[in-house]
Amino acid sequence: MPLLQSYAAGRWFTAAEGPDGGTPLLDATTGEEVARISAKGLDLGEMTAYARAVGGPALRELTFHQRAMILKELGKHLTSLKDEFHALSLRTGATARDGMVDIEGGIGTVFGIASKGTRELPDDTVLVDGGLERLGREGSFLGQHVWTSRPGVAVQINAFNFPVWGMLEKLAPAFIAGVPSIVKPASQTAYLTELVVRRIIESGLLPEGTLQLLSGSAGGLLDELTVQDSVAFTGSAHTAGLLRTHTNVLHGGVTLTVEADSLNCSVLGPDVTADDPELDLFVKGVVAEMTVKAGQKCTAIRRAIVPASMADTVVDAIAARLATMRVGNPAHADTRIGPLASLEQREEVRKAIQSLRSSAEIVYGDPDRVDVLDGDDQRGAFLSPVLLRAAKGAVEPHDVEPFGPVSTVLTYDTVDEAVTLAARGKGSLVASVVTHDAAVARSIVLGLAPWHGRILVLDRDDAKESTGHGSPLPMLVHGGPGRAGGGEELGGVRGITHHMQRTAIQASPDMLTAITGRWTTGSQRRVEEVHPFRKSLTDLRIGDTISSASRRVTLADIDHFAEFTGDTFYAHTDPEAAAANQLFGGIVAHGYLVVSLAAGLFVDPDPGPVLANFGVDSLRFLTPVKVDDEIAVQLTVKQITPRSNADYGEVRWDATVTNAEGEPVATYDVLTLVAKTWPLSPAEGAD
Amino acid sequence: MPLLQSYAAGRWFTAAEGPDGGTPLLDATTGEEVARISAKGLDLGEMTAYARAVGGPALRELTFHQRAMILKELGKHLTSLKDEFHALSLRTGATARDGMVDIEGGIGTVFGIASKGTRELPDDTVLVDGGLERLGREGSFLGQHVWTSRPGVAVQINAFNFPVWGMLEKLAPAFIAGVPSIVKPASQTAYLTELVVRRIIESGLLPEGTLQLLSGSAGGLLDELTVQDSVAFTGSAHTAGLLRTHTNVLHGGVTLTVEADSLNCSVLGPDVTADDPELDLFVKGVVAEMTVKAGQKCTAIRRAIVPASMADTVVDAIAARLATMRVGNPAHADTRIGPLASLEQREEVRKAIQSLRSSAEIVYGDPDRVDVLDGDDQRGAFLSPVLLRAAKGAVEPHDVEPFGPVSTVLTYDTVDEAVTLAARGKGSLVASVVTHDAAVARSIVLGLAPWHGRILVLDRDDAKESTGHGSPLPMLVHGGPGRAGGGEELGGVRGITHHMQRTAIQASPDMLTAITGRWTTGSQRRVEEVHPFRKSLTDLRIGDTISSASRRVTLADIDHFAEFTGDTFYAHTDPEAAAANQLFGGIVAHGYLVVSLAAGLFVDPDPGPVLANFGVDSLRFLTPVKVDDEIAVQLTVKQITPRSNADYGEVRWDATVTNAEGEPVATYDVLTLVAKTWPLSPAEGAD
Repeated sequence: MPLLQSYAAGRWFTAAEGPDGGTPLLDATTGEEVARISAKGLDLGEMTAYARAVGGPALRELTFHQRAMILKELGKHLTSLKDEFHALSLRTGATARDGMVDIEGGIGTVFGIASKGTRELPDDTVLVDGGLERLGREGSFLGQHVWTSRPGVAVQINAFNFPVWGMLEKLAPAFIAGVPSIVKPASQTAYLTELVVRRIIESGLLPEGTLQLLSGSAGGLLDELTVQDSVAFTGSAHTAGLLRTHTNVLHGGVTLTVEADSLNCSVLGPDVTADDPELDLFVKGVVAEMTVKAGQKCTAIRRAIVPASMADTVVDAIAARLATMRVGNPAHADTRIGPLASLEQREEVRKAIQSLRSSAEIVYGDPDRVDVLDGDDQRGAFLSPVLLRAAKGAVEPHDVEPFGPVSTVLTYDTVDEAVTLAARGKGSLVASVVTHDAAVARSIVLGLAPWHGRILVLDRDDAKESTGHGSPLPMLVHGGPGRAGGGEELGGVRGITHHMQRTAIQASPDMLTAITGRWTTGSQRRVEEVHPFRKSLTDLRIGDTISSASRRVTLADIDHFAEFTGDTFYAHTDPEAAAANQLFGGIVAHGYLVVSLAAGLFVDPDPGPVLANFGVDSLRFLTPVKVDDEIAVQLTVKQITPRSNADYGEVRWDATVTNAEGEPVATYDVLTLVAKTWPLSPAEGAD
Repeated sequence: MPLLQSYAAGRWFTAAEGPDGGTPLLDATTGEEVARISAKGLDLGEMTAYARAVGGPALRELTFHQRAMILKELGKHLTSLKDEFHALSLRTGATARDGMVDIEGGIGTVFGIASKGTRELPDDTVLVDGGLERLGREGSFLGQHVWTSRPGVAVQINAFNFPVWGMLEKLAPAFIAGVPSIVKPASQTAYLTELVVRRIIESGLLPEGTLQLLSGSAGGLLDELTVQDSVAFTGSAHTAGLLRTHTNVLHGGVTLTVEADSLNCSVLGPDVTADDPELDLFVKGVVAEMTVKAGQKCTAIRRAIVPASMADTVVDAIAARLATMRVGNPAHADTRIGPLASLEQREEVRKAIQSLRSSAEIVYGDPDRVDVLDGDDQRGAFLSPVLLRAAKGAVEPHDVEPFGPVSTVLTYDTVDEAVTLAARGKGSLVASVVTHDAAVARSIVLGLAPWHGRILVLDRDDAKESTGHGSPLPMLVHGGPGRAGGGEELGGVRGITHHMQRTAIQASPDMLTAITGRWTTGSQRRVEEVHPFRKSLTDLRIGDTISSASRRVTLADIDHFAEFTGDTFYAHTDPEAAAANQLFGGIVAHGYLVVSLAAGLFVDPDPGPVLANFGVDSLRFLTPVKVDDEIAVQLTVKQITPRSNADYGEVRWDATVTNAEGEPVATYDVLTLVAKTWPLSPAEGAD
């Protein structure tokens, strides 16, 4: 791959450079040229127009579930190719372990987001947000928030440190949201992103136009963006500031999400002694964050905040552990710390260490000297891990970010001071709190929370399963306030909705049913000859209703139910005591009796497409059922969700039990599994 | 009130102006001076520091419920003073009806947000967001998102058109979120805001430092803001663009929310004929938005988008209705359209009309002449309502906003064209869709949704209860993408969380219980001698548990339950058919039988503090209960929510039913009402 290509408007594009053109990209270990990069001559306007005209519409033809299923296939396909990616990843300076974080981490994020898509989103193109709002007394005017896909393009501008994860963690949520992506990797490691994009395009799994690649400068790209487009940027606060001043961001309605490097911290609780396992957890956490990816992680721990009395102990323990870790060629099995991404990056980190030294002393490592395993520190960007210890009142550790294997120990005397020190980072992606004292945890966590997007509370109880300080997870938000950029990515469905618009719809129940694809309380019910339990998933329609006969609830029923179940609560058994309870004013039927009788009224007993009742949601007892009240139930199809990997799906039914006066006595959702066809063929029974 | 005062750092401040200083503010009708305004000499740094040091901490000492209860008291207090506010409101040019939108609308928003606060937020200072995420196989490592209050100040910079509503709709969510406010009203109508703030401060209802007022220029205010502070701006897109370039917004982490004027539309469906009631609803909607507040509303309908075939009919009907409405002195009973806020505003609107005329013709009204009822159009800013009709392909109606009683009719031939026209507004606050055809509604609404913050679907079914196109409601989001500013306000709890930080917490179950104040699955259960149903609300503790005896579920029980309830579903009654269902593989107990028996196992029968079971949430049947399985239940206090206006509260219990193997067969939340003390005094029984 001499000159990296872009994938634009349905074809691979080679920049209009001569054979020696483009910017050379060098191997982090050997300094040899890996590839060159240039986007000269690329028509960025065509790319964005293509995304909007081809990719977006193709994607929005599909439901959330269909998009998620494509991502699952993509995840499997990339898994099958990971050895190829790992081989190239070494050239970025990443060890095999570092490569796992990037490659397996990225693929895992695709699977994680896809799984959220199928489990938490409807099989539709519109997503309901929150509950129904009754806007008038009679129920003819309702409010419902919905999310719909933005008809624009999602541009991602990524950092050099995670060429695979960085792309996939942004692509997956946008894809499920129905928004096509243009990927702009950082040049330094763009060859790995280009390889992965090439394999994705070759697979043909993604609808054409939903993924494009810009290998080279993003200059001019923002000029092409408009109100429904967005930019998700990961990188330095400085570049983020420049993007924020682009006229299309300031005045054109382009959404900009920033995830910037931050001065993350780990706080050791005041309760932890040298004998506690939490000390070891703290030390291991700091060392892991200094050494994985040679500390080139937005989430790395830059500030280790410890009780003053524990500072010596902590420093000694970190130093001892660092001493066991070799810096060297990432391809060598004994190497624990690879080179930085480039010699320029190493220079940057050395400068940052120099700044830190104005208020902190180095207690481990030498920024100018390191013993390299199987490598040459003139050609490769090797750097010793460096631990510093700050003087009281030091300013630099809260402002200077060394983007490498560097961390600074700071000390505190009170919990309040620990929180104040953490907050001096002016907003971070993540903090760790290492403590086994629940009161300490609550106090520190709630103090840190407004300053962080994620907080890891680490102790002996969760350490075994903990995924560690530095790992964003697909189901948890990634991002942070202030210096960390103020953005939010991932977080399951949260990350998906960042690519959508939330709109409050005000309408009648029937209109809301039509718009949301979900039956809305108060809208029409369809009662037909055939019992809906006789209909398979493909025949059932929103609004199909069972309107039951009525049944009298006698005192004998209530007595009997109490005796049978053992639920002899006085409201059901003691007339005098029940009368004294002002909520009841006399004997009332058990709520569980009411819903049990309701099931008896609506059920169709014979084998049929309704395979099982797997749950009930939002059951509310609204009016007590008294002795000899007549109850009846209406059960209406509210939502139909086929499962893509089974021959059945979920049907949510609205259940309303009423008394003879027509007052609702209980409302709830009944959840059932219903076969897609009936009878099931013997080979494909539910399982 | 000659020179308006500011309320800053706990005292009323008068600007350092001479007796003739400050900018004069003129009566919209008479041109007489109402007041003068200046903030010269005001120490803005002291104000922001005071909010952070005094107001914020005082507010965050209170729970969400306590803050909401203060707002309810505030709403009542302001209601008692509304006549005084209405009298002054007239001087802004507002008719009595306009004043209701501003004053009663503002107070209603306070009540609405307060009500959401008590009903949807916990009685705590931390708010859980979404469900628990299991991050490891064994359940020792979990994720939970939480919202916490930002320890900063919420600055509001408001528009002139709603001096009361504009302040209160921003104050209420910030207050419940635990964030103190600094109010900066637009000068033109600041005298009314100043009066309301004065009455609020005098009431002593709000903790000191939670509300401050800046009467005068906001110049320099943003210089004082930092990472936890926010600015909510309502006004022109131009000013919004300036605010976005402030260094503290670009680089300092200050959150900026913009709600800007937009070119909202109303679309008449292609199904509507001259005989349908929807035509009249469409016309009335357009006219109301042209005339209320003399069209000076961010939400007003600037573009009436109608089928080409209906254009003449619509234009005639709007013109006829406008002709019945008098322009004049807002104090006069027959006036339907008051003056604009100022002569300058009128000049602006006339200029906008002039621009519109390059591609549209005036079909009603004369921008330069109007017959004024009880007023002088040289001194008062009176303006005739003006209706225009655009030529096909007109550009200006999508770009030029006349902030007055002006609207333009545009025509379409297809539904797609209607959506395209609406989208040319580049993002709006609100659209109306007037149709009685559900398929048309779905198609237009889903097309418009990505471009709008709110959509009103109007037809004969909801018209009677509809609150109209132009009215933001406290429970629905207000804001819109693109030109509308990209911000979001209100929306019930959504508007509250905009003042908070969302953080993903990763921890063990016990730590999550301590941090969230809510019992977390997997954390410790406390089993004591006394049955928790004997404990009143004040004695109950999170984690208190009933661990029941076990009970065998026999075939006789299942048979009997089927016969008794009528629920004879084959899985409970027909061994052969049940065996053929692969989900069961044989006779299983009814889910309702399982939860009924579980209630019999955990209930304490005698009268006591547990007054009633009012519901069940999230019931899931996880493992079938087969014949002769032994079941037992654990019921644990998960959340305690006292009701501030009753002598009882809500207790949410985690219920887990297990079989003899310890597998969970059903999990759910049981919702009960529990007395705060027991026995209740007879006078204060539950009701």
